[in-house]
Amino acid sequence: MNIKTRIEQLKVSPRNPFKNTEKIIKKIELAKQDGIELIVFSEMVVPGYLIGDEWERLAFIRECQNCGEMIREASDNITVIFGNVGVDWEKHNEDGRVRKYNALFIAENREFIHHPVTNYPFLIKTLLPNYREFDDSRHFFDLRKFALENAKTLEELVIPIKTSVGLLGCVLCEDAWDSDYAVAPLKLLANHTPRPDLFINISCSPFTANKNHKRNRVFSNHAHNLKRSFIYVNNTGIQNNGKTIFTFDGESCVYDTNGHTVECGAPFEECSLSIDIPMDPDESFGKPVSLKDDGIDMLYKAINYGASEFMKLCYGTRITIGASGGIDSALSAAIYSRIVGPENLLLVNMPSRYNSNTTISLAKQLAENLGCFYAEIPIEDSVNVTTTQVDNLTISNIAGNFSETLKLTDFMKENVQARDRSSRILAAASNAFNSLFTCNANKTEFTVGYSTLYGDICGFLAILADLWKLEVYEMSEYLNKEIFGREVIPQGSIDLVPSAELSSAQNVDEGKGDPLIYPYHDKLFKSWVEWWNRATPEEALEWYINGSLAQKIDYNGDIKALFPTPKEFIDDLERWWKLYQGMGLAKRIQAPPVIAVKRRAFGFDKRESQLGVRFSQKYIQLKNELLARALNK
Amino acid sequence: MNIKTRIEQLKVSPRNPFKNTEKIIKKIELAKQDGIELIVFSEMVVPGYLIGDEWERLAFIRECQNCGEMIREASDNITVIFGNVGVDWEKHNEDGRVRKYNALFIAENREFIHHPVTNYPFLIKTLLPNYREFDDSRHFFDLRKFALENAKTLEELVIPIKTSVGLLGCVLCEDAWDSDYAVAPLKLLANHTPRPDLFINISCSPFTANKNHKRNRVFSNHAHNLKRSFIYVNNTGIQNNGKTIFTFDGESCVYDTNGHTVECGAPFEECSLSIDIPMDPDESFGKPVSLKDDGIDMLYKAINYGASEFMKLCYGTRITIGASGGIDSALSAAIYSRIVGPENLLLVNMPSRYNSNTTISLAKQLAENLGCFYAEIPIEDSVNVTTTQVDNLTISNIAGNFSETLKLTDFMKENVQARDRSSRILAAASNAFNSLFTCNANKTEFTVGYSTLYGDICGFLAILADLWKLEVYEMSEYLNKEIFGREVIPQGSIDLVPSAELSSAQNVDEGKGDPLIYPYHDKLFKSWVEWWNRATPEEALEWYINGSLAQKIDYNGDIKALFPTPKEFIDDLERWWKLYQGMGLAKRIQAPPVIAVKRRAFGFDKRESQLGVRFSQKYIQLKNELLARALNK
Repeated sequence: MNIKTRIEQLKVSPRNPFKNTEKIIKKIELAKQDGIELIVFSEMVVPGYLIGDEWERLAFIRECQNCGEMIREASDNITVIFGNVGVDWEKHNEDGRVRKYNALFIAENREFIHHPVTNYPFLIKTLLPNYREFDDSRHFFDLRKFALENAKTLEELVIPIKTSVGLLGCVLCEDAWDSDYAVAPLKLLANHTPRPDLFINISCSPFTANKNHKRNRVFSNHAHNLKRSFIYVNNTGIQNNGKTIFTFDGESCVYDTNGHTVECGAPFEECSLSIDIPMDPDESFGKPVSLKDDGIDMLYKAINYGASEFMKLCYGTRITIGASGGIDSALSAAIYSRIVGPENLLLVNMPSRYNSNTTISLAKQLAENLGCFYAEIPIEDSVNVTTTQVDNLTISNIAGNFSETLKLTDFMKENVQARDRSSRILAAASNAFNSLFTCNANKTEFTVGYSTLYGDICGFLAILADLWKLEVYEMSEYLNKEIFGREVIPQGSIDLVPSAELSSAQNVDEGKGDPLIYPYHDKLFKSWVEWWNRATPEEALEWYINGSLAQKIDYNGDIKALFPTPKEFIDDLERWWKLYQGMGLAKRIQAPPVIAVKRRAFGFDKRESQLGVRFSQKYIQLKNELLARALNK
Repeated sequence: MNIKTRIEQLKVSPRNPFKNTEKIIKKIELAKQDGIELIVFSEMVVPGYLIGDEWERLAFIRECQNCGEMIREASDNITVIFGNVGVDWEKHNEDGRVRKYNALFIAENREFIHHPVTNYPFLIKTLLPNYREFDDSRHFFDLRKFALENAKTLEELVIPIKTSVGLLGCVLCEDAWDSDYAVAPLKLLANHTPRPDLFINISCSPFTANKNHKRNRVFSNHAHNLKRSFIYVNNTGIQNNGKTIFTFDGESCVYDTNGHTVECGAPFEECSLSIDIPMDPDESFGKPVSLKDDGIDMLYKAINYGASEFMKLCYGTRITIGASGGIDSALSAAIYSRIVGPENLLLVNMPSRYNSNTTISLAKQLAENLGCFYAEIPIEDSVNVTTTQVDNLTISNIAGNFSETLKLTDFMKENVQARDRSSRILAAASNAFNSLFTCNANKTEFTVGYSTLYGDICGFLAILADLWKLEVYEMSEYLNKEIFGREVIPQGSIDLVPSAELSSAQNVDEGKGDPLIYPYHDKLFKSWVEWWNRATPEEALEWYINGSLAQKIDYNGDIKALFPTPKEFIDDLERWWKLYQGMGLAKRIQAPPVIAVKRRAFGFDKRESQLGVRFSQKYIQLKNELLARALNK
């Protein structure tokens, strides 16, 4: 015997319960026409999930609840499983607001199935994630707190639910990622007598590089160990926490008891999967899971999807990009050209006296390759106005008893140029083109603030800010080869020495450019930013001293060749650490939202406080010892 | 018999364990010299508390632990109580990282007192706040989870600790704010036999308007009900979550069993309080608690303290302010003049053709009153360069088969002016003056984005962004009257119609200005932003229909006089709601950090996702019914 099942991988509109519900009900009607017995939607499919503090609005909560009732009404002749906020108006959360649960609802025959012990018309999520972008405990009361409050054990509460399609073991997202918890909801369900016929995990799980492969490993093991088929449903769409945009790839699937899967269409696409799930646990129906790391192709897919969906959210249809001739703006332009089309893309090159013909030609070549609008708007005149107005300006107080003469240093003049390009020209040109303009900074630049505030860090969205510089190159080559099948991003931009071209010291024709040694600094910064236990200069210096640094940070080169002396190594380390914790952070706070594609995207995933620059006591001690030894040699 | 007690209200340097520890040890040495028996420091006094995800760095955790050992070593002949992170290297948190507790340490005779049941050398916080700016569950494992993990009851775990000064009932911060929790740690302690001799709450509790008065009410009740003296220790300094800066007022004190207090010096000041606490619970030693709401004086104190401390963090000693002649920049200038002194303050007036002599004179008058630097730098020339370069520019693709002519609308030209002022002039002049430049936007403007991105929203810090417009006026008058004792902020700026002066439609001399009706919109926006259960247009419209709106939002006027017809009311409501959720939010994401002084400051206190503009189904229904009724009349 089989359960005629449909998995609905919906594109969820966060904080739009009514719109989601209309879609859900249509899907239920279709399923009924197709004779489906069990239809499963994702976690929080009604309200959306990453919606900030919208949970504090009672009008919103009421609408979610009303929508749940509409879905219940549609559940004649079918078993419907979906995620929504579960509300108890009689109780409160620990913040004093109304009691809310991250809940799984089962409706059939126009009734919700009530949990026999909690007596709620829903099941409560047991494990609430509180890391990365997740704030579950901020908004939801979990089953462990409920158990404590009501003097129940989790054994009494985490139990299978009898439905007309069988005895179901239902959990929500994190409940199945139990390896770091003292509680394992799936085990509690499996230990129950009788054991569930089928396990279901509804999730709202953002894309992160390599997470799906880990999930496939973990979940196929679950199915194998539980000796039951296992349904995993995740949604598509984008959701965000203001500073950080998350994409949802869906990749819903069903695992059989061999841990094999039936997959549900392409990632990032709304789809329905119909499958007859055998009730006989010995009956295999899937294919072995193929485990591989996400390559640059998946990162591109996520960024492309995220940028495209975020533009819709902003009602944006056109894009303006400051095209320098360098690789970051070129990749950005290539990605957006696929989203908006060349007739809605404007590249603006904004030369000053420091820009070479090389880069200007590359920007133009890029525009030609893309077939999009192109304009050259020089910044010399305006920069001169600024310099004339500010440099050497004598200021005084009104009484006239003190005065000073303002002086713009060369470094300040570099920033004047960068701000002139973005805040003056790009913002105005983009307005006049009825478009949004972009921030093209990559993660290496974001880390140390190698960009100017109110200058090149401006834009409505930073699509490359979760990619290290070398990944920008890798993605550029991937786009030329696999997406365009021709040289759209000029090879010259790929070969060019990376340079801001803001002074004669950054002359690309003389091979001069950025002070960053990307192959090394990408890896060093990654150890500070992305590692689960994030490293600091203390570890870097320890590893440098014991000779393991290159291996530890996975740098494929010779550290000694980069920094012949300990002092040079230390100077470089401190220079970038100071920028990372100081101005880099000050700039990130005012930077545009970032599309997250990896663990620890800047913004809400990696939360940062402005605390000034600091080195640990141990670091200072190691450094002093090392420099003293070097001196004594 | 008395316990010779000292309460240390330290200014904590967040994420600087070594610096804090040096200070703590000095205080312990002083106390020993003074024959003190018990010295109490605040929660997380070693590491700091609001430090973002710094908790994920093992080097930092190790330093915190080492610092704790140094404090332990100093505890000969004295009982030392302090807050630090408690680490268990053998276990992990639910995110897989090392196990961390928000912990209270008791050291005496150079040993930590171990909890008899957990066997840890510290006590674990039971209740972890997860609202507003707090992220405790993200980083710390709480006692309830510990109880579940180890099959213990809270009755076994929350017990008094025997020390050489007596049996102590110790809790951490939120543990005493138990009204919304199913668990009350203080009650568990009080029910213990024998009952503790003395209760202690160590806190790291940011200033929020009126919170201290609530705390005095709650804590003096505790002391009264527990029938024991009650020590409350809080720190000073500032801490932040990137987007939101929190000030700590300290206000540590001791309550006697009548609920009376001995207060510990002025708020926002580091201080030590020595007090002999009688062991006899019937012995009264305090004065009755005076309960009153925080007025504009406390808000000023917090903002002044926060701005001053944040400048130190940025190594800033000078300030540049764009002075328009309006009230916001005038208040900002007046506040900063007290922090940096007139010789370090530069006001820049940046007139265009739309600026009246009225406002230019007011800006100059302000500079004269403050005695600070003043400069006038007009924006006409640069705005002309921009207009000439962009307006009517014909763009095309390189192949030349399509072209368009860019057009700057009047509204776009307004934004060109605003960006020209901030990103071009202020940024450059501020650099050249070796200063930081400020964002002067208030909370009303932040709510609906009534400021230009890369324009007047720019700055290193937004000190007024948690004050509604009417509070800006109130604080201005307070400063003139109470702080300066003379008219420093020109009365003309107070009397002036608020205006951006970006077009002839905003001519102040003709009484034209902002589209906001501040007395009404302040209150309406407050209901959306600051209420614990935040309101939406749905509630506003319901109340409008049933005639209770003015009363509900505490608007001291006649709504009908503002909006003669329902349609006008609705148009206004929707206009600002759309801006609040749309462009206003997009601007807040790239806005400077805000000093928080009230519940729900923008940034990390009130977390927001960009989700587009939406009205609830109920709102749409109410609106349609209302407009239909209006039409049928």
